[in-house]
Amino acid sequence: MTANLTAHISPEGRTAVEADTGPTLPVTLVNSFIVPEGRDEAFMELWMETSDYFRRQPGFVALRLHRALTPGASYRYVNVARWASDADYRSPHATEEFRRLVTQDGWREFPSSPVLYEVVFAAGEGAGTTS
Amino acid sequence: MTANLTAHISPEGRTAVEADTGPTLPVTLVNSFIVPEGRDEAFMELWMETSDYFRRQPGFVALRLHRALTPGASYRYVNVARWASDADYRSPHATEEFRRLVTQDGWREFPSSPVLYEVVFAAGEGAGTTS
Repeated sequence: MTANLTAHISPEGRTAVEADTGPTLPVTLVNSFIVPEGRDEAFMELWMETSDYFRRQPGFVALRLHRALTPGASYRYVNVARWASDADYRSPHATEEFRRLVTQDGWREFPSSPVLYEVVFAAGEGAGTTS
Repeated sequence: MTANLTAHISPEGRTAVEADTGPTLPVTLVNSFIVPEGRDEAFMELWMETSDYFRRQPGFVALRLHRALTPGASYRYVNVARWASDADYRSPHATEEFRRLVTQDGWREFPSSPVLYEVVFAAGEGAGTTS
C-alpha cells in the first residue's frame, strides 16, 4: 500500500511516475499527504509556497486541497489537481525552483504519495469542464 | 496505512466514518479502490450501478471517477464525490437499497477506502463552485 510513499526528500519522489498513455491527454494528480495532528499550520505554509509555484505554470487547470474530516484518516490532506496534459504537469518538475521547493527540510515531516489519474466518468456540477 | 481499508463486505465498511465537524457543511468523499489489472470491466459495472443510486440522491453535487495512469498505483480507481452536506452524504447509506448494492459478492474483489474531507483551498477553473 505504500509503494509510492516518499518519506525521503528527493524531487523525484515528489513527482508522480510518468503516465503510460502519452503526454497530451488531461491528467489529474491525486497527492496524499501524511500530516501529524497539530502540524497543520507548518504543512499549509510549505504546501502553499509549493502550490504558488505550480499554479503559475502553463497547463495548470484547477486544484482543490482537502483536509480529512474522518477521524484517523491515514492521509489527512489530499490535493486533487487537474492539468491540461501530462507534459504540462511534468515540465515544472524539472526546474531548479521545484528542486529548491521540495528539498526544504520541512517536507521531511510530511511524506506524500503523488499518483496521476485520468477521469473516466464525471457527473453533476462542472462535469462538462476540462477533466 | 490501511486503517480504513475494507476487504470484507459490510455496508458500514463501505461508508466513511462520520465527520467530526457537524452535519451541515459541504463534504468531499475520496473513495479509493483496489482493482486488479484486467478486472476493470467488472469493477466499472458494479461501480456504475452503485453510483447511479447515489447520483439520484438529494445533496449530491458532482463526482469524478479517476483511473490511475501511474504504473503500480496501489489504488487504481479513485472516486472524488462532492456532497452538499455530511447529512446528505450519510442519509442514502442507511437504506435497504444501499445494503443490497454493497453486499453484492462482486465487491469482495474490490476493497475500498472511503474517507471524508473538507475543501480548505481551491484555485483555477470551477474553484468558485460549491465545494
